[in-house]
Amino acid sequence: MENFSLHMPTRIFFGTGHEEKIGSLLKRFGVSEVLLHYGGGSIKASGLYDKITASLRAAKIHCTELGGVRPNPVLSTVREGIALCRERGVQFILAVGGGSVIDSAKAIAAGVPYDGDVWDFFYPMPKKRIEKMLRVATVLTIPAAGSEMSDSCVITNEDGNLKRSFSTDLCRPVFSVLNPENTRTLPKYQLACGITDMLAHVFERYFTNSREVELTDRLCEAVMQTVIFNAQRALDAEFDYEAAANLMWASSLAHNGLLGAGRVGDWASHGIEHELSAKYGVAHGEGLAIVLPGWMRYVYKHDVTRFARFASKVWGFEMNINDLEGLAADGINATAEFFKAIGMRSKISELGGTAEDIPYLAAHTALVPPAMTIGNFVPLTETDVSNILNSVL
Amino acid sequence: MENFSLHMPTRIFFGTGHEEKIGSLLKRFGVSEVLLHYGGGSIKASGLYDKITASLRAAKIHCTELGGVRPNPVLSTVREGIALCRERGVQFILAVGGGSVIDSAKAIAAGVPYDGDVWDFFYPMPKKRIEKMLRVATVLTIPAAGSEMSDSCVITNEDGNLKRSFSTDLCRPVFSVLNPENTRTLPKYQLACGITDMLAHVFERYFTNSREVELTDRLCEAVMQTVIFNAQRALDAEFDYEAAANLMWASSLAHNGLLGAGRVGDWASHGIEHELSAKYGVAHGEGLAIVLPGWMRYVYKHDVTRFARFASKVWGFEMNINDLEGLAADGINATAEFFKAIGMRSKISELGGTAEDIPYLAAHTALVPPAMTIGNFVPLTETDVSNILNSVL
Repeated sequence: MENFSLHMPTRIFFGTGHEEKIGSLLKRFGVSEVLLHYGGGSIKASGLYDKITASLRAAKIHCTELGGVRPNPVLSTVREGIALCRERGVQFILAVGGGSVIDSAKAIAAGVPYDGDVWDFFYPMPKKRIEKMLRVATVLTIPAAGSEMSDSCVITNEDGNLKRSFSTDLCRPVFSVLNPENTRTLPKYQLACGITDMLAHVFERYFTNSREVELTDRLCEAVMQTVIFNAQRALDAEFDYEAAANLMWASSLAHNGLLGAGRVGDWASHGIEHELSAKYGVAHGEGLAIVLPGWMRYVYKHDVTRFARFASKVWGFEMNINDLEGLAADGINATAEFFKAIGMRSKISELGGTAEDIPYLAAHTALVPPAMTIGNFVPLTETDVSNILNSVL
Repeated sequence: MENFSLHMPTRIFFGTGHEEKIGSLLKRFGVSEVLLHYGGGSIKASGLYDKITASLRAAKIHCTELGGVRPNPVLSTVREGIALCRERGVQFILAVGGGSVIDSAKAIAAGVPYDGDVWDFFYPMPKKRIEKMLRVATVLTIPAAGSEMSDSCVITNEDGNLKRSFSTDLCRPVFSVLNPENTRTLPKYQLACGITDMLAHVFERYFTNSREVELTDRLCEAVMQTVIFNAQRALDAEFDYEAAANLMWASSLAHNGLLGAGRVGDWASHGIEHELSAKYGVAHGEGLAIVLPGWMRYVYKHDVTRFARFASKVWGFEMNINDLEGLAADGINATAEFFKAIGMRSKISELGGTAEDIPYLAAHTALVPPAMTIGNFVPLTETDVSNILNSVL
């Protein structure tokens, strides 16, 4: 097991009814003024917006609004939020939505107390380290990104179509309201993207070169099994509170650091996917459903035993020590089939991409200096990235 | 899944080398003066005491010492610590040891800012709610109680031999240093007690009437399997860092609230065991090894399916849906055999107890008003407690 430090300070209020008390909850945290940050009209259509604003009014919390965050949230909205917070003296951001809204809120929170340009903070070439941030709290509406407990934030800079991230414990929300009921009206396609995203967060940690990580291996497997076995139930037409609840909590645990404690994660697939989202506007989850099976097939020989275990523990294939290769392939195929079964596309061409795009995508993937590779399980060069992308063209 | 709130704010520094930096770590938290709280001579013999005091001196952190905490920590030491902190104006407690030392530190931390007697806070008949506490940090030396991340504290009042607890998020440590190396010199008997204690913390949460808790069921199973499969390796004569590391992290996760999120725990076995510790001075873990199989045999018919799942998932018995009762019994027997195999006694008579003690023990068990029962999976009356104790006499 690797040495690690871990801080998961976000208070979780899980279950029904918390959003009606959001005003008094904020008061407990000494908040009297917020930026209410959200996306499109879905929280208005669902009634969540009304519940929250009524609760804020009742608690006499002054509220500045900034809606309109779009999937793959953009830097221009972040800059708008920063200006707004500065102008009104807002010190606390309440993000109501999914990972896009929460990440947009985190970036605003990082930018407000910083003299320079907020883009300075973004990886892989950050100019500055984040020293101070406004506090952020969330009301989650999409189980997917795990941003409601995580230390990370992903933003797309429209100038150059660069999708980049930062990670700091400072951006972990102070509290998050997780009410599965708030996913009742979520379109099934978006839920399927979320399911893919949360599985991807576990995959990125599960496929590791770190040795003797039995506890976190088993915790990863527990989360993956839960997500897989609840997916169909949650995707069925009728809303199923219990399936939604297990998925929602799984999405938070998949990305709050717990499953990666003591192990080096990979994260190449996320890096590669960011280019698909940036170029084709595909949802992050669906982009991952395309990249991940390609990545798995490209790297599995690096540790066939781990992929065989994955097939056995997560997908239920009988352990056959005489054919670990075959078992590993079974697990990868099952993963790809699962993504298709929940409605994800599986090829770049289905997004409108062509062979001519591959060099561009590979060249734009954020390769980390000085080796100019991405990922840790198998460090990938630009050529490797091209190969993977071609395999899922 | 039940509604829940969860707060796990303790920063974890896991792995080697952190205790040498404890002084600068404390500085980061704005601390310039501590009560250094510990048990007997083991941390002096192991060299840990020297490392820590050297680091405190180097960081110019003023240090008041209170050693001598004994297993099943007592109220008189807590009162001594409270007086000492008040006299010297100490606002921060550094607990170096296992659950006993940490619990003693938590009780001191609760008592210092309180005008009345600290015993007022203890359950099941608390006179007062804790409103404010000093901060506590820990350097863990025994993987067992989970107090290094937990919200709970158990103290024995010598006046009446009452072992009682309180729970509040306020007593979660601000940080904990978890270095498996610090368990290198731990006597194997104490490690076996710790293994029993951490398993007990999972059992208490796993056996629940809460429905649709698949994610936490699987997380519980992951932790139990890890503990069971690492136990022998850790108990072998040669110190095994990796087994120690997996056990240490398991002990923290077993009791930090994660595994109980969304489910109602039982906790009868803990309550019953407290009387064994109070009367016979037996280590908490070994007392649990006696109580738990008795409790399981007494209650399993309440939910045979759950006990059958336990046998299958945790102990590896093949699921046989035609004989769930037999499967449940296999799981319970395996649990009892496991405790024996790691060196735990299995009968009250082995502690020197006799049939005449049972009425006293049952009468002293902290039954919760108004029903005067203990536990949630099956609420137990004083008669039930007697029956269980007689079954393990």
